[in-house]
Amino acid sequence: MTVVMDVEELNVFMRRAFPQVADDFNVEEVGHDEVVVRLMVADRHLRPGGTVSGPSMFSLADVTAYIATLSRIGPKALAVTTNCAIDFMRKPAANTDLIAKSRLLKVGRQLAVIDVLIYSEGMEAPVARANLTYSIPPVGSEADQAG
Amino acid sequence: MTVVMDVEELNVFMRRAFPQVADDFNVEEVGHDEVVVRLMVADRHLRPGGTVSGPSMFSLADVTAYIATLSRIGPKALAVTTNCAIDFMRKPAANTDLIAKSRLLKVGRQLAVIDVLIYSEGMEAPVARANLTYSIPPVGSEADQAG
Amino acid sequence: MTVVMDVEELNVFMRRAFPQVADDFNVEEVGHDEVVVRLMVADRHLRPGGTVSGPSMFSLADVTAYIATLSRIGPKALAVTTNCAIDFMRKPAANTDLIAKSRLLKVGRQLAVIDVLIYSEGMEAPVARANLTYSIPPVGSEADQAG
Amino acid sequence: MTVVMDVEELNVFMRRAFPQVADDFNVEEVGHDEVVVRLMVADRHLRPGGTVSGPSMFSLADVTAYIATLSRIGPKALAVTTNCAIDFMRKPAANTDLIAKSRLLKVGRQLAVIDVLIYSEGMEAPVARANLTYSIPPVGSEADQAG
Repeated sequence: MTVVMDVEELNVFMRRAFPQVADDFNVEEVGHDEVVVRLMVADRHLRPGGTVSGPSMFSLADVTAYIATLSRIGPKALAVTTNCAIDFMRKPAANTDLIAKSRLLKVGRQLAVIDVLIYSEGMEAPVARANLTYSIPPVGSEADQAG
Repeated sequence: MTVVMDVEELNVFMRRAFPQVADDFNVEEVGHDEVVVRLMVADRHLRPGGTVSGPSMFSLADVTAYIATLSRIGPKALAVTTNCAIDFMRKPAANTDLIAKSRLLKVGRQLAVIDVLIYSEGMEAPVARANLTYSIPPVGSEADQAG
Repeated sequence: MTVVMDVEELNVFMRRAFPQVADDFNVEEVGHDEVVVRLMVADRHLRPGGTVSGPSMFSLADVTAYIATLSRIGPKALAVTTNCAIDFMRKPAANTDLIAKSRLLKVGRQLAVIDVLIYSEGMEAPVARANLTYSIPPVGSEADQAG
Repeated sequence: MTVVMDVEELNVFMRRAFPQVADDFNVEEVGHDEVVVRLMVADRHLRPGGTVSGPSMFSLADVTAYIATLSRIGPKALAVTTNCAIDFMRKPAANTDLIAKSRLLKVGRQLAVIDVLIYSEGMEAPVARANLTYSIPPVGSEADQAG
């Protein structure tokens, strides 16, 4: 399965589909094996002490997996997350952007499965890992979550 | 293991520990078997169409599991989420508060394990389920995530 | 959605569909809210010390979730597990049967979501918890795992 | 953290620690970034049709994560799995060995986190993915699962 949307198309689509978080994320790279997305860390993402919050890391994992899926199936706003398992492994550096790198493991007719590693920019070891499942809507129908 | 913090103490502690999200959550009930927390849904929690976003549901699950753990071990801000698996099962009702109910399955020396069900207020079937693991810091030390 | 297979029908179906493990499991109760399945513990399920192994607990969770799903959708051997998250919380008692109790959270057109608690018979606190997702094959087709 | 046990030591330790499954697994490679373990598929691992069962894949993921952890912390039989999330993505080839490759993401004082990909020997795309958390016993104590 080939890449059908490039970095610019994905950024445009994301900003239109999720205007509430348009200023949080930037798609940086889209390749066959990997998609890279940046969380531009601002005050609203922080916990006391300057650490990026768990929900902000979840949000980045979710957006990255979505972008990775769209890069193969094209702009379908109806694809929905059905499942996520996330491990928080290290404290992110204070006031530092997070960089997520995805690995697209499967794009089937009904489900996509994606692994994501999250890094504090400039640190070598990942701060979190996640795997997500997306439900892909059949043509002319809604995805399963709505059912 | 008995309940050592009540609804009021937990609300006060939460607002002090997480000022950024102080206006989002309210602890409603604390019992031996169950803790109930409300997400007071506002524009910032919504996706286009009025549906509550996945990260907002994750955030509610995380706070609820934290509150359930604190209700037994007392006010320790250092307890950290190490792991969460969450299933998104149904679309929440538009512009409606979410209610999370926890089941505390284990509070050990190092780890607490909590299940959470999330409901759209007024709907019978849950919209999401999650299970979370918290790392409990040894006395006089930091939790494992920081290591 | 109503229960469409009873305890006896489910035991017969399970023994025919999974002859390799026919002697391991017994469906004990099937209700609207809960299905109960027993793992009849034998030497092959044990670790040194007499503890039931992790894979045996996973296997019990998987069978229980499958039985819970079939009790609602009828005998479809093609339903496949797409996802499982399991927490091992306490050491099971030595040489003691395990009892699994399920909670069927969703049966949609494509996916079923089930929570399972596993007990060592006679112990009050659960030894493990799991949540599983099953992919339900569309009529006249194979499930997504095969794609 | 360096590798402290080689392929031969790990195979010897595994056969002694888990005699019930000694003939199922073989540690094939141990490196800084990756451990490779083979499931030597036999009748007892199969479902009707010749497909390797879900519990057999779980078992392989569990053993591989354990071997990856031991390769860094040395022979500690008390390390216990506290958590696993596994996705079943494709049907394994019939009567074919499975190969698991791990990625050790963290070895902390209390917890190790490992990702595993499982392949049907000779197929390019993975059949399953898993992530596991191991609880590492403090010196002179038992791991948390026993508590």
